[in-house]
This record gives sequence, C-alpha cells and structure tokens, in this order.
Amino acid sequence: MKFLRVGAPGLERPAVLGPDGAVHDLSSITADLDGAFLAGDGIARARAALAAGGLPPIAEPGRIGAALARPGKVVCVGLNYLDHAAETGAEVPAEPIVFMKDPGTVIGPDDEVLIPRDSHKTDWEVELAVVIGARARYLESDAEAEACIAGYTISNDVSEREFQLERGGQWDKGKSCETFNPLGPWFVTADEVADPQALDLRLWVNGVIRQDGSTAKMIFGVRHLVRYLSRFMVLEPGDVINTGTPAGVALGLPGTPYLRAGDVVEVEISGPGGSFGRQRQRIGQA
Amino acid sequence: MKFLRVGAPGLERPAVLGPDGAVHDLSSITADLDGAFLAGDGIARARAALAAGGLPPIAEPGRIGAALARPGKVVCVGLNYLDHAAETGAEVPAEPIVFMKDPGTVIGPDDEVLIPRDSHKTDWEVELAVVIGARARYLESDAEAEACIAGYTISNDVSEREFQLERGGQWDKGKSCETFNPLGPWFVTADEVADPQALDLRLWVNGVIRQDGSTAKMIFGVRHLVRYLSRFMVLEPGDVINTGTPAGVALGLPGTPYLRAGDVVEVEISGPGGSFGRQRQRIGQA
Repeated sequence: MKFLRVGAPGLERPAVLGPDGAVHDLSSITADLDGAFLAGDGIARARAALAAGGLPPIAEPGRIGAALARPGKVVCVGLNYLDHAAETGAEVPAEPIVFMKDPGTVIGPDDEVLIPRDSHKTDWEVELAVVIGARARYLESDAEAEACIAGYTISNDVSEREFQLERGGQWDKGKSCETFNPLGPWFVTADEVADPQALDLRLWVNGVIRQDGSTAKMIFGVRHLVRYLSRFMVLEPGDVINTGTPAGVALGLPGTPYLRAGDVVEVEISGPGGSFGRQRQRIGQA
Repeated sequence: MKFLRVGAPGLERPAVLGPDGAVHDLSSITADLDGAFLAGDGIARARAALAAGGLPPIAEPGRIGAALARPGKVVCVGLNYLDHAAETGAEVPAEPIVFMKDPGTVIGPDDEVLIPRDSHKTDWEVELAVVIGARARYLESDAEAEACIAGYTISNDVSEREFQLERGGQWDKGKSCETFNPLGPWFVTADEVADPQALDLRLWVNGVIRQDGSTAKMIFGVRHLVRYLSRFMVLEPGDVINTGTPAGVALGLPGTPYLRAGDVVEVEISGPGGSFGRQRQRIGQA
C-alpha cells in the first residue's frame, strides 16, 4: 500500500493510494499518519477498510504533504555508498556514521526548499528513507530488524556543506536548516518492496541528472542499519532513517555547482516494488 | 514560577510549585507541559489561576517526571566551558559546536539511567538546559533571544565516550542511548532567573563531588547560543538546549572512573534566582 497526506501545510489529511489510482480519505481510520497509527496496526486497518470500499475517494487532493506527520526523530547515516565516500574524499567507514536532523525540517515532497541566510554551499542528497513501524531496541537479527520496518519513502537530505564540515566538525549544524528534509510523496509499505537493496535512486537539478545510483551499492543495507542503530538508541514507530546518498552531490562535482534560488530539484526512487513517486522542489531563499 | 510534572511514567500530570511549597495541579489549564502550553501563553494563564486560588494542591505527588513533555528536539552545545575543553584535550571552539540527542532520551530527574549494553565508558555531564518558549528563527539580537527563552532547568547530558568519540566521529551515537537525558525536577521561568550566567552547577557520584562549576564560565552564554542556533535551525516552543558542561567528567579525571551499575549520581543547579532542585539517579544496566 501507498500512504500519503494531502492538504495545506499543517492541515494535511491522511490518505491511501487505491489500486484505481485514486486518493482515498483515511480520516475515518486515523487522524494522521504518525507513530500511533503505525504502532496501532493502522496499516492492516487501512487495508481492510480500503478492500471493503469504506474509504471515499478525494476528488481534488491538492498539495501533497510529507509522507509522515512530524517524526519523533530523523536519524541519518553518512557515507553509506562507496562512490559518495570517494567523491567527498572521506575514508570508507568501518561501521555506520550516525547523525541527526531536526525532525522539524520535514516538509512535503514538492514544497519550497530554502537556502539558509549566509549559505553558499547548499547541496542535495537523494536517499531511501526507512519508516519505523515498531519499537527497535537491541535487536539481535536482520529478521527482527525487518519486522520493525513499516515501509520506505524518498528523502532529500538537503545539506549545507560549509555549516556541516567547516564550522566545528559536527554535521548536524549543516543538516537541520529550515525545510531541509522533503519527504514523500508517499510511503510504500514494506510488503510491497521485495528487495530494498534493489532500488534505483535518481536526482536532477534543472533537468540535468546529477545522481543515478542503486541501493544495491549501499555499504550497510537497511536491515543492518536498523539493527545497528538499535544498539545505540531506541527507534520508535514514526521515526525515520535516512540511509545515505550515492555519488553526484554538488560537493563532489566539478565546479561544485551548489543550489541557487530558482533552481528546480527532482528526486525519484523506483524498483521492482514499483514506484516511490517523484519529488519536485523549487529552491528559494530564506 | 516553577513547573513540574508528577505521576507514573507516561501518565504525568502538569503541576506548579506554589509559594506555599505545595505542588498544585495544573490539569485544568493544560493537558501537559509542552510546546503548545508554552506557545499558548500557558505560563501567564497558570500564574493567574494560581494567584486566584484555582489550582488544587496534590496531596501525594509521587514520582517527578521530566520537567517537560517530550521536546520536539534536544540541541546540545559541546565544549562550552574552557576547563571542560581542556580536560578532554579539545581545542577551544571558535564558535559553538552543535549536536543533537534523541528527544526520546528525556526521563525524569530521579529515574534510573541505564548503561548501554557493551558500554564501558558511560559518563555524566551536568548542564543548564534552556527551555524555548517562542519560535526562534534568524534572531538578530540577544534581546530577541531572551524573549524566546521560557525558562531553565537541569539536564544530565549522559554520554558514552567510546560511542561518541571512537566510533566514527559524529557525537550523536554516544549521546542518544536510552535514558540518557534526565531533565528537571522543575523548570524555572526566565523571570525568576536574574542572571543565567551566574548559576552554580554541581554533580556528585556516590557522594563525591565531581563537577563544581559556574555558568559564568561558559564560553558562549545562553542568549548568544539561542541567537546563534537560530541561524542554523528553527527553534520551536518546547525545544530544549543543553548548554554544555564544566570540567569534572569521568573522561577527564585520573583513572577515568566511568559509571557502573549501582552508582548514584546527584545533580544540582542553584543561584541568585533560587534553587533549580536536585536530581538523583541510580545507575542500572540495559
């Protein structure tokens, strides 16, 4: 199933994409797509209601919001693709590098991304985002990790490289700026993603393809990441993990073509499990 | 005023300490002490209700919970005291070092702190915590920053030094373990804190004083920190800033006496504005 949220910012309604392609209103099942929905067997309840014809279609869905209500936390994995580690001049990590984004950075997939004031190095990063569906604490196997994954969606882990790398060394400062995490358009439940390590990730800036990778080339796969993280923190339903980006970010390109106001970024993930949809952000100035 | 939350974990009631020393039930004013309470002029409403005698005392308050409901984010400042930077062998930062804790780490001031599995370097850090009361975004003066501060409380920024420093270099991994942020016992409104840079911070382990510092020795004061952070992220009501720790952590002591199960940590902040209370944590094993 594909879950999404539609409506004006802050007023989104939960919805599900039906097999008919229509957007069906999920308001009768849950107030929002959040941790409580996922922890409360919401996916199964939504599936049953949709099958029973109990979810009315929304004629004009309008804006698509973030695929989830504000996550409890957004955990990020750095340098998780060999080619991206190489382009940034970093060593290949022996174990996952972990940092965090302010969960308040999460916005809709087509919302405006703002270049921070005094920024000259705002960059893009297409990433597969994992949506946690059950509490993960000291997991002992990949099978346990898999059972904690509700689904997957697209994340653009927008990054300010000067703030991240040249202002003290802790990355969060360059990862948490306002609007820095477009998320969506929908999250695909795990049962529809036959192999999360066989997905294609692509990102374009002004129509020029900049990133063209595959989750097959992750250093640490998503199940390993969930298990690994559960040794250092408790993952809760509704939390999001950004699993790292392949090569092709501005930092690693000739001439470092960082984003400017007026640019358009498009982001896509697809694979055997079908499409995760496409994001399209216009870049503005804070 | 001093606000607190009393009751079993997850079932805390909001309350206020009256001038009579009694704990008064604030449930008629707000469901919880959270961002919505602070943004909705809750402090003023609580003050008026208390003055009017409209808040019944709670005869047996029982356990004290975290001074705030789960924050939207917990932003931390590293190496913000000269003596602590020196003891850890770090350079004095030219500008604030910023990292984050999982907001799910926040627990009550007297709750058990768990040493993570496979941890040998769990450490303590007394810190002055700033509670944000109004949205802070690109603030331009210390006066604007001051207006965004709802109050202050005590934070123990528990840290696992191996996870923080030896497992990839991004600190969040050693800062976000389960139970790693005792917060409280109460938060003191900013109007009662004449000078946040004149507070004494103390921490004892098994009765031995380990940290004995003053916020007068911060490298970057709290108003500067709020203003600084607002250039890199949007601070929202209910967010918490841990403002750094003075010298005396296990990492910097002879023999590096890291915490062990059975230890007792006590944490206190006091100053001209009166007492911030005292925390007392028994150390357990995850």
